[in-house]
Amino acid sequence: MKNNDKILDKTVAIIKKYYEHSEKNPVLRYASPETLKKNINLNIAQKGMNIDALFQEIEKIALNSPKTNSKGFFNLLVGGEIFPAVMAEMLTAVLNTTMHTYKSAGIHILIEQEVIRFLLKKVGYRKGDGIFWPGWSLTNMVAIVLARNEKYSSIKISGIRGKKLVGYTSDQAHYSTEKFISVTGLGKEAIRILPTDEKGKMNIRILEETILSDLKHGYIPFFVNATAWTTVLGAFDPIEKIVKIAKKYKLRLHVDAALWWGALLSKKHKQLLKGVELSDSVSRSLHKMMNVPLLAAVLLVKDPDILYKNFNENADYLFQMDDKALNPGNKSIQCGRRNDAFKVWTALKYLGETGYEKRINNEFANAKYAVAVIKKDKDFSLVLQPECINVCFQVKGKPASKICEALDKQGLIKVSYGKWRWEEFIRLMTVNADMTKADIDNFFKHVKTVKI
Amino acid sequence: MKNNDKILDKTVAIIKKYYEHSEKNPVLRYASPETLKKNINLNIAQKGMNIDALFQEIEKIALNSPKTNSKGFFNLLVGGEIFPAVMAEMLTAVLNTTMHTYKSAGIHILIEQEVIRFLLKKVGYRKGDGIFWPGWSLTNMVAIVLARNEKYSSIKISGIRGKKLVGYTSDQAHYSTEKFISVTGLGKEAIRILPTDEKGKMNIRILEETILSDLKHGYIPFFVNATAWTTVLGAFDPIEKIVKIAKKYKLRLHVDAALWWGALLSKKHKQLLKGVELSDSVSRSLHKMMNVPLLAAVLLVKDPDILYKNFNENADYLFQMDDKALNPGNKSIQCGRRNDAFKVWTALKYLGETGYEKRINNEFANAKYAVAVIKKDKDFSLVLQPECINVCFQVKGKPASKICEALDKQGLIKVSYGKWRWEEFIRLMTVNADMTKADIDNFFKHVKTVKI
Repeated sequence: MKNNDKILDKTVAIIKKYYEHSEKNPVLRYASPETLKKNINLNIAQKGMNIDALFQEIEKIALNSPKTNSKGFFNLLVGGEIFPAVMAEMLTAVLNTTMHTYKSAGIHILIEQEVIRFLLKKVGYRKGDGIFWPGWSLTNMVAIVLARNEKYSSIKISGIRGKKLVGYTSDQAHYSTEKFISVTGLGKEAIRILPTDEKGKMNIRILEETILSDLKHGYIPFFVNATAWTTVLGAFDPIEKIVKIAKKYKLRLHVDAALWWGALLSKKHKQLLKGVELSDSVSRSLHKMMNVPLLAAVLLVKDPDILYKNFNENADYLFQMDDKALNPGNKSIQCGRRNDAFKVWTALKYLGETGYEKRINNEFANAKYAVAVIKKDKDFSLVLQPECINVCFQVKGKPASKICEALDKQGLIKVSYGKWRWEEFIRLMTVNADMTKADIDNFFKHVKTVKI
Repeated sequence: MKNNDKILDKTVAIIKKYYEHSEKNPVLRYASPETLKKNINLNIAQKGMNIDALFQEIEKIALNSPKTNSKGFFNLLVGGEIFPAVMAEMLTAVLNTTMHTYKSAGIHILIEQEVIRFLLKKVGYRKGDGIFWPGWSLTNMVAIVLARNEKYSSIKISGIRGKKLVGYTSDQAHYSTEKFISVTGLGKEAIRILPTDEKGKMNIRILEETILSDLKHGYIPFFVNATAWTTVLGAFDPIEKIVKIAKKYKLRLHVDAALWWGALLSKKHKQLLKGVELSDSVSRSLHKMMNVPLLAAVLLVKDPDILYKNFNENADYLFQMDDKALNPGNKSIQCGRRNDAFKVWTALKYLGETGYEKRINNEFANAKYAVAVIKKDKDFSLVLQPECINVCFQVKGKPASKICEALDKQGLIKVSYGKWRWEEFIRLMTVNADMTKADIDNFFKHVKTVKI
């Protein structure tokens, strides 16, 4: 450990420098790939590099990384951090256990179980099961596979053959639904992308009409995806109404609550997910509203046996000891798997439900404040009254895309733009719970004054 | 950062304790879930926990984690570590960038590009492309999807419909091939699992006979999976011969070299992968033979456009700036993605090709030494002369499963057993390059003397 101690010290020094740098420089000035390659020696060579020289390069990499935890980052749904959770993620790197079996992961299996237990309770699945996978869009893929195989159990073994299965989602749902229905062999045409209403929500009348038309033409409806918090607008599909349709036509209902899990911790805001306990599965990205490091995505299912039924394989070289429930490799689409639950557990232990609720409420309060700023200022116009923390607005006479690009290239703010119904607008996400009103003011100051 | 400094110090202290503990206690004595839950407060509560109390629990978690980096861990293909790579993985947690776009990940996009460039060169794909995904079995899934969509480009949009596609793999290939061919909608029946020869390799004669029989019965062969280093025996399918069959019958050839990538760095051992440059895609787990932390899996493809063609979606809320090649979200099945390449880059920079070669050669030398020990000892019998670092052997008169369980429960060694042709045997993996002959001797001492 002696030589390693020195390397660990160097790493800690870089971490400290990174945070100092990030405070002073919340956004990097844009640097082209050519510039970065000139300044940082990336080239992998025949000969190794000594630790001092290598860690100089690593320090440059750290300081040249986009500061996703800073007060200038509003770019995506990732932002902010809960420091003890970052530490847990660091320890995950050191401990390096793999989550197939209790034999190889021990205590880490129990940590994941505890987090899943907690999440199931919050969703309201009485029994249920769940698993962490690296990427919430993958959890959506699995939801489609489960729905497909539940409709025809023969598909797992004999394939889709000529079955004309169709699923439903809205035009505001995440783009990966199309990608994954294609992966599962049904083809992109098998997902009906329904136009949304004037708030960006799924239109129930159109949903039912489309199902009826499909039935008439010999299609077999099997799946409906309800989005709770759409990516661009932050809209919520009406889950309770969709539940009724799903029951009536025997569709499996998946709730893509990727962005939204945090709100279930808030008594004030959880009504937006009303009816979620009546769904068949839910997917979530805890690395978004919960401000833990990437990746922390989870799939929850109401039927506690469905994951085993679909993903258990006979691999006796792996599953040699202990109870089925202690060997989650049996129900996973992955073989090797990190313990992504550890950072979530740490954040939940640190804050408690109460502390988390405060953070989530602050994200909402910041969005509300931003809306007030926009409404007061004649140069701004609000695109849509937000249901949660996506604040979509325009700056009169200036294209949103130009503003975002200028803000980034000049190193002022990272924020992105969205499009809806031919309109282009800035999409401010108040996802970092540590932001204050002053940070929001600072955001608008730059948006207003940046030279495009 | 002040309060965070204290938390960082605590984390560093835990890391140091973990390594000390791991040196003295290379394997944990088995503890039941009930015992662990009694000793460690896992319960997520309403109220948060103060940092001191929380980090006491976290320390217990660290010290109760199976020591995958220790000299007593021979359990899986994960083992050992390269310390600077562990530090890079820790920094990945801190930097927390997501790899969709250059705007959100900057320098990290260039790091992945450099690692991919290096890997492509090693494989011998002149142009080619590649991407890191969290889990090598997922990269195998994508290989199947690419093969399926290349056979019929209509499948991406219109689905499989009645097409009777069939693929081929050996009975020693990884269990996930069946799982994933099922996910892709073809059904498990669509993969022909071919019996292997007396060394556990794919039998070319049987492969061709099966293809001919399938053609005769109206099936459409589309895919063959060659395994380079099978999970249990460590056998290599004859790639060059499979290439000929694949060309003759127009199958896409994927090489599952999950376990094996390291050997390409060794001049002495790379001939085992001869012909790999003639394949269409290769998947690899760099967290195995390369001793970097989980997960570091990569898919390499010969056709530089094929990933875009299959996975590009129109997501203008994401892809707003910079060149296509700088926004790998365009070619990914994941949306959010960690920079898994950073630790690999760090290991390669630190060791250089030369340093890595030495490590890989040592893994082989340890396997060779283990074989010599087995051959010298009348109590042991070798199941198969290993081609690489899986040493499969039996202890006369004692069932392998009982020995492995006893070694684990008594906290002596973590190792697992395998099965082949109705025989059960201990499967020693010399995957940790830091092991010495003394560590191998210690392993055999325990195997021989453990009370079952």
